[in-house]
Amino acid sequence: MEKFRIGDVKVVYSEKPKLKNPVFIEGLPGVGNVGKLAAEHLIDELGAKKFADIYSSDFPPQVFVREDGTVKLVKNELYYHKAKKGNDVIILTGDFQGLSSRGQYVLAEELLNVAEEFGVTMIYTLGGYGVGIEIEQPRVIGAITHPELADEITRHGVIFKEEEGGGIIGASGLLLGIGMLRGMKGVCLMGETSGYIVDPNSAREVIKVLAKMLGMEISLTGLDEKADEVKKITDKIKNIEKSLVEKEGSEDLRYIG
Amino acid sequence: MEKFRIGDVKVVYSEKPKLKNPVFIEGLPGVGNVGKLAAEHLIDELGAKKFADIYSSDFPPQVFVREDGTVKLVKNELYYHKAKKGNDVIILTGDFQGLSSRGQYVLAEELLNVAEEFGVTMIYTLGGYGVGIEIEQPRVIGAITHPELADEITRHGVIFKEEEGGGIIGASGLLLGIGMLRGMKGVCLMGETSGYIVDPNSAREVIKVLAKMLGMEISLTGLDEKADEVKKITDKIKNIEKSLVEKEGSEDLRYIG
Amino acid sequence: MEKFRIGDVKVVYSEKPKLKNPVFIEGLPGVGNVGKLAAEHLIDELGAKKFADIYSSDFPPQVFVREDGTVKLVKNELYYHKAKKGNDVIILTGDFQGLSSRGQYVLAEELLNVAEEFGVTMIYTLGGYGVGIEIEQPRVIGAITHPELADEITRHGVIFKEEEGGGIIGASGLLLGIGMLRGMKGVCLMGETSGYIVDPNSAREVIKVLAKMLGMEISLTGLDEKADEVKKITDKIKNIEKSLVEKEGSEDLRYIG
Amino acid sequence: MEKFRIGDVKVVYSEKPKLKNPVFIEGLPGVGNVGKLAAEHLIDELGAKKFADIYSSDFPPQVFVREDGTVKLVKNELYYHKAKKGNDVIILTGDFQGLSSRGQYVLAEELLNVAEEFGVTMIYTLGGYGVGIEIEQPRVIGAITHPELADEITRHGVIFKEEEGGGIIGASGLLLGIGMLRGMKGVCLMGETSGYIVDPNSAREVIKVLAKMLGMEISLTGLDEKADEVKKITDKIKNIEKSLVEKEGSEDLRYIG
Repeated sequence: MEKFRIGDVKVVYSEKPKLKNPVFIEGLPGVGNVGKLAAEHLIDELGAKKFADIYSSDFPPQVFVREDGTVKLVKNELYYHKAKKGNDVIILTGDFQGLSSRGQYVLAEELLNVAEEFGVTMIYTLGGYGVGIEIEQPRVIGAITHPELADEITRHGVIFKEEEGGGIIGASGLLLGIGMLRGMKGVCLMGETSGYIVDPNSAREVIKVLAKMLGMEISLTGLDEKADEVKKITDKIKNIEKSLVEKEGSEDLRYIG
Repeated sequence: MEKFRIGDVKVVYSEKPKLKNPVFIEGLPGVGNVGKLAAEHLIDELGAKKFADIYSSDFPPQVFVREDGTVKLVKNELYYHKAKKGNDVIILTGDFQGLSSRGQYVLAEELLNVAEEFGVTMIYTLGGYGVGIEIEQPRVIGAITHPELADEITRHGVIFKEEEGGGIIGASGLLLGIGMLRGMKGVCLMGETSGYIVDPNSAREVIKVLAKMLGMEISLTGLDEKADEVKKITDKIKNIEKSLVEKEGSEDLRYIG
Repeated sequence: MEKFRIGDVKVVYSEKPKLKNPVFIEGLPGVGNVGKLAAEHLIDELGAKKFADIYSSDFPPQVFVREDGTVKLVKNELYYHKAKKGNDVIILTGDFQGLSSRGQYVLAEELLNVAEEFGVTMIYTLGGYGVGIEIEQPRVIGAITHPELADEITRHGVIFKEEEGGGIIGASGLLLGIGMLRGMKGVCLMGETSGYIVDPNSAREVIKVLAKMLGMEISLTGLDEKADEVKKITDKIKNIEKSLVEKEGSEDLRYIG
Repeated sequence: MEKFRIGDVKVVYSEKPKLKNPVFIEGLPGVGNVGKLAAEHLIDELGAKKFADIYSSDFPPQVFVREDGTVKLVKNELYYHKAKKGNDVIILTGDFQGLSSRGQYVLAEELLNVAEEFGVTMIYTLGGYGVGIEIEQPRVIGAITHPELADEITRHGVIFKEEEGGGIIGASGLLLGIGMLRGMKGVCLMGETSGYIVDPNSAREVIKVLAKMLGMEISLTGLDEKADEVKKITDKIKNIEKSLVEKEGSEDLRYIG
């Protein structure tokens, strides 16, 4: 019997579901963790079922320890959801992206192999678009593999950045860029985010657009709650900072006065 | 004749012992060097015998020079001990862990190949758990591959960390994480340690638990002595620091006075 | 059907032109971006036609987003131009050079495979020669694979650096160095440049020499315009700096006076 | 015809000499450049002849430019010398050592393949031993693969460091460490050196010992001259530093007085 080996990338299936014209949705850790938050929310709301674990020697050499003390090797995961109408869905999320450039390419190619095997022709990659300042009403920035996809996404409020030359780094970029070379189409949806905090507020806007595009009903309550929690924490921090500044201010006055 | 090559990893056997249901114990350099100290102590006390050297191109490109001027290529080593009752034992220790993520995975997989070949089904990985402050009475933190192992380790005083999401980095984590995927069970025992010094005191607590779990009698005198030595050195450093602070204090006074 | 894979390097041909004794010209990003500016100018002026895209897992894992929102995987590109007289031309330019040493070697070897396939025996690599200070009249520094090429380039005003031991790093060096080992000849033309800014002024001098060597008529208007733009921007910056210095100066006076 | 490829390591022979029980001597760049200076001196004095170039994708992706403008890909080189009496000699020197750990291992193994092919059973590796301070009379520190070699080197004035645990990093260590595993014997000779400058003075001491061990007559004039040059330069720098300190001193006095 051949021994189990991770090698560069190893996909371990727990199930091989039969899927009808599935679209592939990626949400991995990244700027503001927007993509991962969005993918996890989608998995929860759709009740999507895991069918594969993906291991890579380009992930950190590490296990996570759960609350009950059990460990799990860091990985990516694939879920599926059978839609009542329209396309079935494959969702990718996970603990890490590849650490090295080569590892990212190899992983993206292996994921596209899986996607091809299930007949995927359309990919949605989800992420954050770091703007460096706090954003009350995050917009969703789009990128597309083919010009004919422009109408479809601007119709749902997605905007393009006017300036040329921006880049999409990591899986969200590579899955589209390499996917194109394999004849797939794709859209990247990036929620504006400060880039400093985990941002469920931005993830919500991304999910809103994605749900409309896929004709899915997705409750946003979960993300709303997470966004409220994050807001409470950041407000608390701001208050502390403010009071510190005020204190320092009065101390300064003492020095001057 | 094929030439000797290290390639990614090379296991060089000096002997292929016949072992009875051996458990595999790992103790490599890491936080507080706790795992390595524990493994070396075990080897000394059991009089375990080396049966394999493990070389890897992911170890530093380096030899060590012994007191008599002879060199040895940096490596890991495997020892065995035939138990009078219960399981035989394989112990892994060594000079380094792999330098890169990929190297760590490849090494762990090769070590698991060896373990499988000897029929290992249970792995114990030993290490330190860095807490950032000096610890008088280090506790032993545990992690397990399967929930049914929890009782077995808490029974011997091992605790789990309540908070989720902690990680075990390096061989101690990977051997369990990848081992699980090959159908093995495993336990990681981590002695609390400041993380700033080599910590025989922490290693002793780890050995205590391990000996109880394996039903072995292990004298702790050696580790007690090492712990005393380390304590003398750190006490000396503290005294120097204290007298420096006092001197600076008096000098400061002269400036002010 | 075999799946599309980038692997280390993947050359994707859109066309396989029949070329007559083509010379190979390289201009990739580097010091002052001189090589890339020169190659792009040549492509524009000759109306050279793209015939291949080159992908590598040693490029950053990234897509660029164009103004219309469409993405492209980062890559290098090969263009050809059929000359009315003399040698046909293959031009290499692109977004990046390889990130790692190994990646650079592998990429250079794959590019030389392509060059060999088209019967290339002569390579021109273009780049900048960083001098650390602003240069009004950049000279073109040369390097050659064979001593008998010296006359040919000094005849066109190219100079050699007297001191030995300088190096040419990246594709401009490797294509010549490895090319030699495959029996090819080659010349490297490096325009002097400060190294601090993108330098069309330096690229112009490189193109002037190259055009003379290849007996091509190349308009320099495009590079003149770019050079003017860059000069305007740097002049503006200098004026700001100057006025800042003056302000600070007067403030200083106030402190002293 | 198969295309020329460097791959990981490529040995290109210009000649395959017939050698009589050759010893292998390594002197590559390292601490104080002692090993390289010693190997180059040996090549000059013996009139050794180059018979192979060694390229590696783990060397920097770079060519050097010679005074006449011609380039050469960075590499290592093998020379041979046919001795009138005693062992013939193979000498390794070069521009760089491998950049990565893996590259160092692969290169050392390939060099040992070459050594084996020529029937080498004894390896001498030359290097510097950094001590951090200026050394008037550098001693030669030794390391050996087998205890029975100790007498042979201490007899020629080589000493061992008493403390255990020192390491020899890079080719000088690996060739011995891996060589041992292939059944070869070896000695490392390290001249004490500050580690701050290129040190022909230290290289001279290493050569003295090596010549005695191999029963060769080697003139040291060349290294004496280089040592004088280096001394002049360092003396000049010291004088400048001294006068700067004195100036600062007098300025300081003005502040105080």
